[in-house]
Amino acid sequence: MKKPVKVTVTGAAGQISYSLLFRIAAGEMLGKDQPVDLQLLEIPPAMGALSGVVMELEDCAFHTLNSIVATDDPETAFGDTDFVLMVGARPRGPGMERKDLLEANARIFTAQGTVLDKVASADVRVLVVGNPANTNALITASKLKRLSATQVTAMTRLDHNRAISQVAAQTGQPASAIKKIIIWGNHSATQYPDIHHATVNSQPVLEVVERQWFESDFIPTVQKRGAQVIAARGLSSAASAGSSAMDHVRTWMQGTEDGNWTSMAICSDGSYGVSEGLFYSFPVVCKSGHYEIVQNLDINDFSRKKMNITEQELTEERDTIKDLL
Amino acid sequence: MKKPVKVTVTGAAGQISYSLLFRIAAGEMLGKDQPVDLQLLEIPPAMGALSGVVMELEDCAFHTLNSIVATDDPETAFGDTDFVLMVGARPRGPGMERKDLLEANARIFTAQGTVLDKVASADVRVLVVGNPANTNALITASKLKRLSATQVTAMTRLDHNRAISQVAAQTGQPASAIKKIIIWGNHSATQYPDIHHATVNSQPVLEVVERQWFESDFIPTVQKRGAQVIAARGLSSAASAGSSAMDHVRTWMQGTEDGNWTSMAICSDGSYGVSEGLFYSFPVVCKSGHYEIVQNLDINDFSRKKMNITEQELTEERDTIKDLL
Repeated sequence: MKKPVKVTVTGAAGQISYSLLFRIAAGEMLGKDQPVDLQLLEIPPAMGALSGVVMELEDCAFHTLNSIVATDDPETAFGDTDFVLMVGARPRGPGMERKDLLEANARIFTAQGTVLDKVASADVRVLVVGNPANTNALITASKLKRLSATQVTAMTRLDHNRAISQVAAQTGQPASAIKKIIIWGNHSATQYPDIHHATVNSQPVLEVVERQWFESDFIPTVQKRGAQVIAARGLSSAASAGSSAMDHVRTWMQGTEDGNWTSMAICSDGSYGVSEGLFYSFPVVCKSGHYEIVQNLDINDFSRKKMNITEQELTEERDTIKDLL
Repeated sequence: MKKPVKVTVTGAAGQISYSLLFRIAAGEMLGKDQPVDLQLLEIPPAMGALSGVVMELEDCAFHTLNSIVATDDPETAFGDTDFVLMVGARPRGPGMERKDLLEANARIFTAQGTVLDKVASADVRVLVVGNPANTNALITASKLKRLSATQVTAMTRLDHNRAISQVAAQTGQPASAIKKIIIWGNHSATQYPDIHHATVNSQPVLEVVERQWFESDFIPTVQKRGAQVIAARGLSSAASAGSSAMDHVRTWMQGTEDGNWTSMAICSDGSYGVSEGLFYSFPVVCKSGHYEIVQNLDINDFSRKKMNITEQELTEERDTIKDLL
């Protein structure tokens, strides 16, 4: 067994965390030889429920779970941490405008980003899952002085996985046969799931599926999948979000497979003309805990328009909360 | 990748299944090289919710998930199946007596056992998770003609894991240091968690902890842990139950580690004087899909009394539903 690493999860008593924590503790995110110290953050009213989650984690007798701290104090939760999964966010309440939602979350992530910068490990890696994830990541990153904005990412892996699954179903091939899907932009209904570069068993997907299906069926299905799950389950996606969060961190650390990439929302460096500093989802290649944007992909007019629409939404989100940056 | 195996889960839209299905689909129960066909059973009113779970399973793009069938027809769900996790059961409703609960479940498991015997793979392995698990397993097994009662087991692995976790906490050692815990009897508050043979880093646990702690603290804590989790979470154990169900099947197939055993409720062959045919939890050693009761352990008077109490409860449960056997 290696030396334990510290993993912080915020919103730890919520539904996504309930799907996530047991798999992290079982070594399924960082490896069966990598013990973890869980540092769980919740707001005071949820500490009772969190104590029940802690009991259940203990009850599993996981060999890779070294210790658990449950706290409502961010300094404790983020102290010396190596990995942070920011799952907790303010959901939209009745009568709440999008602006109110962005601002409520901006306040949460301002506070957490500030503490993170103060107490986390210098090498910390952060994944923002709580929505609006891209802009929550932007706010978090804007508070970093000691740490770098490149250490903060937001999750579009669920969208990426959904896109793979839709292409797999349409082509009648297993998910493992589908490579080089891209999610561009915001984790929202403006996201652009792009299959222009995707392959199925090494053949371009657009040679196998109809373009009509791509434009009129695939894109809106992936964009609106979250709402479809809510309609069926009566609850928002939790286990699939948790699973994708683990995929995101695992790929970040263990690397993308040869000849493939994944999608991560990261601080734009201006690649593909995306405004610098926005948290925008790009195709990335990962290796040993580092990611790099896949460069020089051909972008046609259709794609450029879709990429601009989702960039525009992210710009507006940033403008809405600019006083807090 | 190996040839896919079929895994049936009943009560597939419930909370335990929601914690279980994604891990099974990710290859965490049967191995990362073992694709699975999931055959999910629910009652008609839950089929809508189940469709949402299926969408989320698809959305994860798991490489080890070969196919999913969601159905309210037991013949379809149990058809040619290799593994059955019987998670669905009737929970106790308001004003329901224990007798009513036993009988309501007896009817469910009578029907399912009958179909199972008719359509499952000849080599099927069954784990009953739904409570009252031991007696539900007894009923299921009583309906088997083509299949053998030894193919049916009930889950006490959650109790076993809870017992390990309590000893680990008390001795300040990791869970991996604790071996040879035993859960005897019923998965209920009469169960007897026994540490007379248990070791911590190869030293007898009873040389490390106080006997007083064992008798007055440890035993009731493990027996009543489920109620304690409900009190804290406001919901019954789901993720820990799901995790332990996976442990049960994984250990059954991959084997217990050398110098250790696990606990499984199985059809008694009269070992340790337990009435033949009762589903009673014993210490077992597993190897390549087979289990064997650990024999010739010394049982002192203290243990004998506790083992008899839980056997007595199982006998009464059997008597309550004897007209359905």
